[in-house]
Amino acid sequence: MATEPRRAIGIDPGTARLGYAVVESRGRALTLVECGCVTTPPALPMEQRLLQIHEATLEVIERLAPTEMAVEELFFAKNVTTAVAVGQARGVALLTAAQRGLTVREYKPMLVKQAVHGYGLATKAQVGEMVRVLLRLDAVPTPDDAADAAAIAICHLNTLQVPSLAPAGPSAPVGRRGG
Amino acid sequence: MATEPRRAIGIDPGTARLGYAVVESRGRALTLVECGCVTTPPALPMEQRLLQIHEATLEVIERLAPTEMAVEELFFAKNVTTAVAVGQARGVALLTAAQRGLTVREYKPMLVKQAVHGYGLATKAQVGEMVRVLLRLDAVPTPDDAADAAAIAICHLNTLQVPSLAPAGPSAPVGRRGG
Repeated sequence: MATEPRRAIGIDPGTARLGYAVVESRGRALTLVECGCVTTPPALPMEQRLLQIHEATLEVIERLAPTEMAVEELFFAKNVTTAVAVGQARGVALLTAAQRGLTVREYKPMLVKQAVHGYGLATKAQVGEMVRVLLRLDAVPTPDDAADAAAIAICHLNTLQVPSLAPAGPSAPVGRRGG
Repeated sequence: MATEPRRAIGIDPGTARLGYAVVESRGRALTLVECGCVTTPPALPMEQRLLQIHEATLEVIERLAPTEMAVEELFFAKNVTTAVAVGQARGVALLTAAQRGLTVREYKPMLVKQAVHGYGLATKAQVGEMVRVLLRLDAVPTPDDAADAAAIAICHLNTLQVPSLAPAGPSAPVGRRGG
């Protein structure tokens, strides 16, 4: 059975640096379409930095046409200020996805490491190396934010149960967020 | 000297409930234009809730045409999850302001209480009552989120140094974010 290609964008959010990676899957074969990092100048007012993040994310989504977005859940942070800053960038990325009709899924950091490396406590370097191997790249993507975003996209494409691929009952309705 | 009226929107951000209040000042006289609370259903995916917040905030800004936005800084939160959730809604509100060209200022919660009530440790009820008095209302705005947003707008209008009102040097350039 031929498998429809899927194209997902992984996001590693932050206001100073937001990593993204668009990855395509055909069956088990994964291909990196593009990855990178949106940086915003600290001297700029926060609302202008968020506007830059919005416009850059929108540009990538419109140009590369992913239909799914994957983002890590944030479980820990140095302090409330950091958590709010990450949350603000994350909110803008999720909003941009909703505006362009992408589905969104969130993954716990341990699950991302588990899915990419096979070990939930793998180091950043170990995860980066597996990203390189799985995407058949010459080198680990840089900066770290882009490699992390690629790991999130790989986790999403490899672990998500796609309704159309699951064995369906004779007339079982398939919910958008079922399970 | 006649004072140009100013119209500001105060925002008390959250994903479940986002309070807003549009307040106009003419000299020291303050008038409530409108306040309310945007609520989003917990059952909806986060990105759809953020989309609702964006669209509701945009509608208020386009209809009532404030030119300034004021938001509280967040210094404490129950946990990282809460801080991220508030940050996401806050990021969407700030983005909407930037998209519509509003200037944005942030205020510490103590400063808001100080500006409205004269006492930085005033209770929520005490701040609400002063909001009622300062805006010459029959009752404290409800829900709390709307009253809090009104307090933030009042703080902003009463405390911000407006460059055009400040004594200007003979040819001193006035920065948008001077001082």
